Amino acid sequence: MQAAVIDHGTIRLEQRPRPTAGPHQALIRVRLAGICNTDIELLRGYMDFSGIPGHEFVGHVVEAPSDPELVGARVTGEINIGCGACPTCLTDGPRHCPKRHTLGIDGWDGAFAEYLVLPAANLHVIPDGVSDMEAVFVEPLAAALEPSQQLHLTARQSVLVLGDGKLGILTACALHYLVPGLILAGHHAHKLSIAAAQGVTIRLAADPLELLRECGRFDVVIEATGRSSGLSCALDLVRPEGVVVAKTTVADKIAIDMAKVVVNEIHLVGSRCGDFKLAMAYLRDGLVDVMPLVEIIRPFGECADAMRVASQPDSMKVLLQLPRN
Amino acid sequence: MQAAVIDHGTIRLEQRPRPTAGPHQALIRVRLAGICNTDIELLRGYMDFSGIPGHEFVGHVVEAPSDPELVGARVTGEINIGCGACPTCLTDGPRHCPKRHTLGIDGWDGAFAEYLVLPAANLHVIPDGVSDMEAVFVEPLAAALEPSQQLHLTARQSVLVLGDGKLGILTACALHYLVPGLILAGHHAHKLSIAAAQGVTIRLAADPLELLRECGRFDVVIEATGRSSGLSCALDLVRPEGVVVAKTTVADKIAIDMAKVVVNEIHLVGSRCGDFKLAMAYLRDGLVDVMPLVEIIRPFGECADAMRVASQPDSMKVLLQLPRN
Repeated sequence: MQAAVIDHGTIRLEQRPRPTAGPHQALIRVRLAGICNTDIELLRGYMDFSGIPGHEFVGHVVEAPSDPELVGARVTGEINIGCGACPTCLTDGPRHCPKRHTLGIDGWDGAFAEYLVLPAANLHVIPDGVSDMEAVFVEPLAAALEPSQQLHLTARQSVLVLGDGKLGILTACALHYLVPGLILAGHHAHKLSIAAAQGVTIRLAADPLELLRECGRFDVVIEATGRSSGLSCALDLVRPEGVVVAKTTVADKIAIDMAKVVVNEIHLVGSRCGDFKLAMAYLRDGLVDVMPLVEIIRPFGECADAMRVASQPDSMKVLLQLPRN
Repeated sequence: MQAAVIDHGTIRLEQRPRPTAGPHQALIRVRLAGICNTDIELLRGYMDFSGIPGHEFVGHVVEAPSDPELVGARVTGEINIGCGACPTCLTDGPRHCPKRHTLGIDGWDGAFAEYLVLPAANLHVIPDGVSDMEAVFVEPLAAALEPSQQLHLTARQSVLVLGDGKLGILTACALHYLVPGLILAGHHAHKLSIAAAQGVTIRLAADPLELLRECGRFDVVIEATGRSSGLSCALDLVRPEGVVVAKTTVADKIAIDMAKVVVNEIHLVGSRCGDFKLAMAYLRDGLVDVMPLVEIIRPFGECADAMRVASQPDSMKVLLQLPRN
């Protein structure tokens, strides 16, 4: 099969053996894959990654030895593959298994390939009313919804989403059902308008500290800038005893003013993957319109160029269309 | 009056005018003051401090124009002086007032002086059964108890207190009533033994990662090392979705691996001052024995030398005895 492989800061197409599904696994023919900022970071050296990236996908099941009823199903899949035997797997599932692999990120070949393998338990069948292009957003939409699973977000809180990239927009669009007064702040009028069209209050702010003058400090700041400077900014914008949710993963360590965190007794909460069922329900019920987030669809053969497009600072979601056989 | 003054990295005794108490304030004759690590940090440049430091004290009230019943009372006092008029002061009190001053730390002359002034509302009368030397620990014991006011600590959690300095020992001794299985880890057998004598489980660990091998990861790690390296260590020792409570304030920014915080969905909680009534009750009821934490009592005139003693890495609590007139 054809696969896109990252190796020492480059990505190129290679021929790789088609994988096979073991017991309780499924082989999936990938139809559509999404490029995430994490993929860009992997290309830049995050996690010392080499291998097949990609963790946002839609495909159909072609083999499922232990679960034959899955064959033919249109699916997406959760990205954490636990050992299945440790206390974490047995109580909380694979998300934080200490021995886990992560699809296209850590020790498990990803979705930028014609085929991938996942445990059958990781798969979610996509409802008929949800298109491939929508379903490829299940993983990032789940991540966008994750703060609502970690914090009790309420309509009385003042909540700021910082950053008008894909994740910031998804987060604001998803969470404004819980916090109608939520504000999305960013630098790009045309990106903010995507969220505004879905009922989100937006603020165009060249300097986020403008927000301080306009809005005061927030109960909750969700940092989704994708930049290492975003955290410091979030700490300036949150009230004492407030919560900063950190969504950005970058390769470098970040220098933060811990004295500010301690003196202001700030809660800083790391936030990663989310609940696929919840995200799928949001898409099925039409709560979030992800289609305006699609920048472009490229054929899989143009994968390297698609990564370049996706790594532009202003780029929205770039999708890879796998060949249909 | 005599006062100890920090100026550009030095501390020396000076004659200063005796302050006067305004309406709703009290003038306090200081009897005993404690040197905190924050005072050492102020001497080293934290907060660009210049002025009279000191925020742990016992004294008696000599003037209280609006509260004459306080005159003669033996008191200690809360260190945050709010504006009294902003929404934060009116709802949550002065602890996080954006315009607050802080006794001996920020914009308000401190306790390393014969007299100090505080709002009468900040004062707590010391019960007869609590000695001056015990009562000077009310402020640090309140800070040690603060994690219990921020988190729901329970007996089922695995909790590690990291650091066997004064704050670490106080924290472990205070919180082990809530979490009997709590572990205090540090480098110094003789310091750890102070906590062990009060029923705390201790671990002598040259390398904190030894703890990983022995105990696995903890639900909650309370970082009280007083060192900028402590936070990174705490992040290594906490389980995914666990809580790190940061108690250390240092002047410098700290570089942390935010990808680890995000991927492991760690909650990082800054923790500062605590509840004086709670700490006073702990002392009154004999729950924590603070006396073994006293390194030495020095006459106030030897303040500069006392600061040197207190700044030794192995030093415990150094107290300053103010002159009795």
